[in-house]
Amino acid sequence: MRGMASMANRGCGKLGAMNPAMNFCSACGAAVSLHIPAGDSRPRHVCLACGAIHYLNPRLVVGSLPEWDEKILLCRRAIEPAFGKWTLPAGFMENGEAVATAALRETAEEALARIELGAMFSLISVPHIDQVHVIYRARLLDLDFAAGAETLELRLFGEHEIPWDEIAFRTVYRTLRHYFADRRTGRFGFHEEVIGTPDTFQDEADKRLPGTWLLS
Amino acid sequence: MRGMASMANRGCGKLGAMNPAMNFCSACGAAVSLHIPAGDSRPRHVCLACGAIHYLNPRLVVGSLPEWDEKILLCRRAIEPAFGKWTLPAGFMENGEAVATAALRETAEEALARIELGAMFSLISVPHIDQVHVIYRARLLDLDFAAGAETLELRLFGEHEIPWDEIAFRTVYRTLRHYFADRRTGRFGFHEEVIGTPDTFQDEADKRLPGTWLLS
Repeated sequence: MRGMASMANRGCGKLGAMNPAMNFCSACGAAVSLHIPAGDSRPRHVCLACGAIHYLNPRLVVGSLPEWDEKILLCRRAIEPAFGKWTLPAGFMENGEAVATAALRETAEEALARIELGAMFSLISVPHIDQVHVIYRARLLDLDFAAGAETLELRLFGEHEIPWDEIAFRTVYRTLRHYFADRRTGRFGFHEEVIGTPDTFQDEADKRLPGTWLLS
Repeated sequence: MRGMASMANRGCGKLGAMNPAMNFCSACGAAVSLHIPAGDSRPRHVCLACGAIHYLNPRLVVGSLPEWDEKILLCRRAIEPAFGKWTLPAGFMENGEAVATAALRETAEEALARIELGAMFSLISVPHIDQVHVIYRARLLDLDFAAGAETLELRLFGEHEIPWDEIAFRTVYRTLRHYFADRRTGRFGFHEEVIGTPDTFQDEADKRLPGTWLLS
């Protein structure tokens, strides 16, 4: 569905970034309890009635950084979290997709944009919310983009027009910083990193981002 | 836990690579049914009693390619699937981890090995089983490795000793092929790709791998 817009309520629970509570077995409906399964080392939600083990694993949020000449396409969010803030088109990868396919789909949904996908550009772990965010470089094929259902407006920004204090998510902020730094060197790399606690934020604008290091 | 060993039963159901059946709401225990939630475009397992939406998303399998001089450390699997076949130390990323942290942990669990992690080397989507496999280059810090609980034995292989027809998983096979190809050029890249259906396999040895394109 529609990108980071949906980080609060997709691949997640209905109203927040958390999964629905794990009280009952999805297979048989009996109550589950926390046990360390044989051969495992962590407590898992186990159904003693039918033996099912319910694992919880991190999710991938995937999108693109669409270029047109020297400008970058950003989406202004029409929903919480970060209503009114600017983001790249992205959202939860779905079962049955490849990572690149998810980036194309999310860009089509958020920005109704046609792109040619380039190389994977950033991969950022966000362990405190059990997510990994992946952004590809991309080239807009035309200017016939339009706001999807979870987007207020779209705009192309040159480097000096980027609304740094109005970026919706820290992973997007860092990806854009890397992008313009790489562009100045003339060589685009692949950037893997981890977003930790606020004391690890990189610069003053990063620290000012309002409440966005917690996406939940 | 213990690497690809656990692909059959972790981040998954008890007995296979599938999730436990989705019949009941984990939050309230009521029966769930398939509906397309408002603002969504795909059917999801929805609880009409409490409103919870149960999303299913792809999982990350993460590991390392540990080097010692010109040799590579492989693990022979002590469990199904692919019992007795050779693999790199890897397994499901856990909640609360960064991707690199998961690679270190899996290498410690599978091979009881201490490594210095290098750059992310391969990222391979496996959409038919809803997984993304990520392998980092790594340097063994010493030779005090030993088989973990799901490993029969460990061995260092030179390029011409690699048991190509006895590799457990296609993602491992491709990662090793990329590694030796890059090593010959003297420059290691980052390899992102998709494993599709058997007609997309790359070479004869790839095609001969017994049943491993389906990890489930």
